[in-house]
Amino acid sequence: MKAAYILDGQVSVGEVPDPIPQQGQVLVRTHSCGLCASEAHFLQSGEQVVGLCQKHGGPYAGLDLSRPFVPGHEYVGEVIDYGPNSKKPIRIGRKVTSVPIMRQAGAHSVIGFNNDCPGGFGEYMLLDEDMVIEVPSGLDDDLAAMTEPLAVGLEHARRGLPTNEDTPLVIGCGAIGLGVIVGLKLKGIGPIVAADFHAGRRKAALKMGADIVIDPREMSPYEPIHDLGGRQVNLVYECAGVPGLLQQIIQSVRFDGRIVMGGYCMEPEQILTFSAQNKRLTVYFAGGEEPQDMTLALNTIADGKIDIGSWIGAKIGLGGIAQALAEMSGPEAAIRTVVDPRKF
Amino acid sequence: MKAAYILDGQVSVGEVPDPIPQQGQVLVRTHSCGLCASEAHFLQSGEQVVGLCQKHGGPYAGLDLSRPFVPGHEYVGEVIDYGPNSKKPIRIGRKVTSVPIMRQAGAHSVIGFNNDCPGGFGEYMLLDEDMVIEVPSGLDDDLAAMTEPLAVGLEHARRGLPTNEDTPLVIGCGAIGLGVIVGLKLKGIGPIVAADFHAGRRKAALKMGADIVIDPREMSPYEPIHDLGGRQVNLVYECAGVPGLLQQIIQSVRFDGRIVMGGYCMEPEQILTFSAQNKRLTVYFAGGEEPQDMTLALNTIADGKIDIGSWIGAKIGLGGIAQALAEMSGPEAAIRTVVDPRKF
Repeated sequence: MKAAYILDGQVSVGEVPDPIPQQGQVLVRTHSCGLCASEAHFLQSGEQVVGLCQKHGGPYAGLDLSRPFVPGHEYVGEVIDYGPNSKKPIRIGRKVTSVPIMRQAGAHSVIGFNNDCPGGFGEYMLLDEDMVIEVPSGLDDDLAAMTEPLAVGLEHARRGLPTNEDTPLVIGCGAIGLGVIVGLKLKGIGPIVAADFHAGRRKAALKMGADIVIDPREMSPYEPIHDLGGRQVNLVYECAGVPGLLQQIIQSVRFDGRIVMGGYCMEPEQILTFSAQNKRLTVYFAGGEEPQDMTLALNTIADGKIDIGSWIGAKIGLGGIAQALAEMSGPEAAIRTVVDPRKF
Repeated sequence: MKAAYILDGQVSVGEVPDPIPQQGQVLVRTHSCGLCASEAHFLQSGEQVVGLCQKHGGPYAGLDLSRPFVPGHEYVGEVIDYGPNSKKPIRIGRKVTSVPIMRQAGAHSVIGFNNDCPGGFGEYMLLDEDMVIEVPSGLDDDLAAMTEPLAVGLEHARRGLPTNEDTPLVIGCGAIGLGVIVGLKLKGIGPIVAADFHAGRRKAALKMGADIVIDPREMSPYEPIHDLGGRQVNLVYECAGVPGLLQQIIQSVRFDGRIVMGGYCMEPEQILTFSAQNKRLTVYFAGGEEPQDMTLALNTIADGKIDIGSWIGAKIGLGGIAQALAEMSGPEAAIRTVVDPRKF
């Protein structure tokens, strides 16, 4: 099949082996797949990520960077076939998405970051039949492809155990931070404060349901907020992945604050536990979504409750991936570029 | 009054000004006061602790190390007098203890680590009348002086939100770790696993209610435990204050684990947030006790539910403090040395 693959830190488009479904696997023709910052990260620092996982444990320990792998983990596709003796939970021709996890030989592989589980930047994929969820008929492919990135934010949102007593602050309004805002809004938590350096991201945060947006260069989000009757944030979502930010939050948040660490940092972080103890802080380390988050994300998108279409910028084919990965950061970048892997 | 005081990193015994109670303050004649590792820490590294608090916030920012201060925050004493216009909640002649906090000019000072709030290593103290709790008549002074150190462990225990589903591990079986074990036992949580390098401490852990004790040189406490039917610890209490131990726990604990950080470390800790995120860990930073913990600790001691007398080693006068502070660590040291400040 045709696919965009990464080999030795380069993106290429070409032929890779057709995936052949085994028992318990669904063969899917991919319709749309979002481009995530983690793909750019693997392209630039794949060895570091794999090395960390090999040394300290983690889902990418088995990825061999000297062999090609097809990325893409924010996918929607059409069911084409099943492996022999499968349960076939969803009918041929229906569209599906899933948590990008494939159970293989008792372990979990991450689809799109594994040499044997190609992701959504190829014509075909294999999914785990126990993980797939059906996309409602009539829902646009590109909107459905936003299910996974939205689900990550929904997981982070609930990870902080938010209550009506909380005043949350979301730092970083990329896809993950925006998903956290959606997740908090769905739970009726608020007012929600969001902070980002970029005006476009702050605008997106308001669209997703933030009540107050802050440019951290202009004011501290940790002080009592006049427009909220003097309320002060106490539940901080780190969705930026900026080295040193965790300690800055520890330093700045109020007594009894809670922090959800969502942004990934590959280097060890220095934290002053003395400060965190004096303030009785709690840090929840957040990872990725679970099936319940995928279901909620898909339902939320399908119900039209949020304007997820506003996340989507350019729509490209396989041939545009390399350039899009190079240009994906920056204040003017769209939240998501989507790839139609049926096109070049 | 006579007191042992710290000045310029030295312990001396001599005359210091008599404390005079103001409105809202209780004048107490001290009967017994425990010697805590934090006093040794202030003696050796006071400037570092005060400097950290001045820079990053914390309760010791106001301590002037170039002026004498009288330490001792694990006290029991007899009510002698009140300041003018006080509420006088407890009758003269009764015995009291308290959270070592004094409200002064809108702020909170820590009794025993403040130039103007002498601690229990002097003949008299001032306490905040809204913080004192009455010691039941007939309860031995030295046992009652264990209320505060026990209360710290009780706070740490509840800070981890333990449930019947948890298998807790307590690392470090000094007073704080032993208090955590008592706190878990009082809540009916278990089996409780405790780890310490020293045999005497492991024995103390069993006496307080630990079900399994481990010498970390002999086996890892994080693996499934054969004697517990293969259960694996998931809620880890760091009560050792050893630099680097937090990251070691992050590295070793199982998926979805929770960590209560009780031990104080003054240097920044390096943690690999990537690992903590992959495992979806939660870290609760624990500080000191609150009034509810003091009440529970005192009731537990008074009810005779635990053999708190086993914590107590030598009983000394003011003149023995300097030597006791120098010798307080090490495998053979008692959990607590108690000081009778009425004696030299």
